[in-house]
Amino acid sequence: MHALVYHGPGRKAWEEKPIPTIVKPTDAIVKILKTTICGTDLHIMKGDVPEVTDGRIIGHEGVGIVEETGSAVGNFKKGDHVLISCITSCGKCEYCKKGMYSHCEDGGWILGHLIDGTQAEYVRIPHADNSLYPIPAGADEEALVMLSDILPTGFECGVLNGQVKPGDTVAIVGSGPIGLAALLTAQFYSPGEIIMIDPDDNRLNVAKTFGATQVINNSTENVLERIKSLTGGKGVDTAIEAVGIPVTFELCTDIIAPGGHVANIGVHGKSATLHLETLWAKNITITTRLVDTVTTPMLLKTVKSKKLNPNKLITHHFRLDRVMDAYETFGNAAKEKALKVILTNEE
Amino acid sequence: MHALVYHGPGRKAWEEKPIPTIVKPTDAIVKILKTTICGTDLHIMKGDVPEVTDGRIIGHEGVGIVEETGSAVGNFKKGDHVLISCITSCGKCEYCKKGMYSHCEDGGWILGHLIDGTQAEYVRIPHADNSLYPIPAGADEEALVMLSDILPTGFECGVLNGQVKPGDTVAIVGSGPIGLAALLTAQFYSPGEIIMIDPDDNRLNVAKTFGATQVINNSTENVLERIKSLTGGKGVDTAIEAVGIPVTFELCTDIIAPGGHVANIGVHGKSATLHLETLWAKNITITTRLVDTVTTPMLLKTVKSKKLNPNKLITHHFRLDRVMDAYETFGNAAKEKALKVILTNEE
Repeated sequence: MHALVYHGPGRKAWEEKPIPTIVKPTDAIVKILKTTICGTDLHIMKGDVPEVTDGRIIGHEGVGIVEETGSAVGNFKKGDHVLISCITSCGKCEYCKKGMYSHCEDGGWILGHLIDGTQAEYVRIPHADNSLYPIPAGADEEALVMLSDILPTGFECGVLNGQVKPGDTVAIVGSGPIGLAALLTAQFYSPGEIIMIDPDDNRLNVAKTFGATQVINNSTENVLERIKSLTGGKGVDTAIEAVGIPVTFELCTDIIAPGGHVANIGVHGKSATLHLETLWAKNITITTRLVDTVTTPMLLKTVKSKKLNPNKLITHHFRLDRVMDAYETFGNAAKEKALKVILTNEE
Repeated sequence: MHALVYHGPGRKAWEEKPIPTIVKPTDAIVKILKTTICGTDLHIMKGDVPEVTDGRIIGHEGVGIVEETGSAVGNFKKGDHVLISCITSCGKCEYCKKGMYSHCEDGGWILGHLIDGTQAEYVRIPHADNSLYPIPAGADEEALVMLSDILPTGFECGVLNGQVKPGDTVAIVGSGPIGLAALLTAQFYSPGEIIMIDPDDNRLNVAKTFGATQVINNSTENVLERIKSLTGGKGVDTAIEAVGIPVTFELCTDIIAPGGHVANIGVHGKSATLHLETLWAKNITITTRLVDTVTTPMLLKTVKSKKLNPNKLITHHFRLDRVMDAYETFGNAAKEKALKVILTNEE
């Protein structure tokens, strides 16, 4: 088979690799139908994720067809169409039993990270019974690729941790794919206002079509003043950080109302300053989370009932064997007006 | 009457002041029976709380007898014995209706701060119906002074925000009166371990008699190693910050387990470093809060049912007119082995 292989910072190739085989009885081998590229993959390619080593197949999202199952796999059989979760979970460790799959003692985020991933014609999925989800007949499989990572991430780390409630004022800092995923799923809970904050006007325009009630371009506008005027000076009930740099996190803690929730989604490489000298008395909650994908079944139901249309996030299509081109496009997302790209395995 | 009056940084006096009078129909005038000194009062005396101005009577804790009520006060009458909450709340603003009394739009922490306080023979209590609590007949009134501030603070900001649960491992950083109040009230929820961390061996010994299962002297021991060995490398489920400086806050975020809760109680004057580069994926929750005293009725019931013995926190007694001596003792708490001092108005 062919796969996208990482060869150290700045070096990747679409090259021949052996088809994976069952290693443990709980494994499944899945033939990839559709996959995508994540912002995290760009970080890996830059060398920001040092535990990814030379020779690793990248990618942690996708849908496919079960090709083979280990003897202990009970939920799936050859030929089943499946959604691959970005999080591998054994289902039986202390963390899995709490629904904290991201901290699974024999899993977590390992696909395309510590084991070979989904930007390939085939992938081995450990703990298949817990890490794959059946795709309903007639589903738009391309859309469901958005449920591998981006939608549960925006929903769990942003919307659920942020405790979005009917009538609330929500600010989402960052209108990239993850921020937009939070924007789409925040609407399950009928907030009164959703304010998107980003320096890219194209992304803000997209946000408006996705349901944002207000947009603020933080490269040209004074965010604090706009938020003050939009909230009668009180601040927002929920501030969702969907960028991953200190300044955007600190913005969230600046605009939060007393009693509010700051929900961090961003992947951070640096520490931030926490202004406890003002925040200590403000009765606020700050949360961090790596997605657990514990809400994937719920999100599948919202797609089925048309409360959620993940297709909106897809802007570009490539054949899987053109993945190098797809990285070019996704890596220049602002210029290319790219949100998510779909890679289709046509072989 | 006489009262303890602030005259700018480092200057205070026990001096004659007019007896307060009803200003609004919702006011009550309370004759103080017992009051105490808070760590916050020491900060005020140093000049750390600049909104406290020259001439202000200090103090925000106490029990007393209602002397006079405004025409709109319905819950109390002259002669009633009452507990004074450190938080004044109108009960009818948006924040009060959410139970966030500390952010009351016509109250919050104002006693001995923005209006005259309780280290006096008489005090005016605004919004008396919401800011006073009836003392049950036969109650140990001295003990109830601990319910004005310190016990609800430890309980609400530490134990409730920290979501202490049966079997959990809880670390409390700071074994002063507030940390000990958290220690006492954490036991309502039957945690498995309560680890007290402090540089003062006397306070750690007190913590042991109050129910701490482990103590760590952070001036002589490696806290991270001890916590690692006590928790099998995972960290604690709840870390309660009861000091108010960056290093103790950062210690809490260092020792927290995935999925854990860092509950800040401390009054901070400086920002802290938030290590998002490690915390972003750790599924943790950080909370801040100024006490709302919304649990005062609950705490009164726990005293009545002997689940809570606030007397334990009282180490020293003074007559109210010896309040200057009491400040000396409380200001040298470590040397004097002082926790809370009780000031009795004997006139």
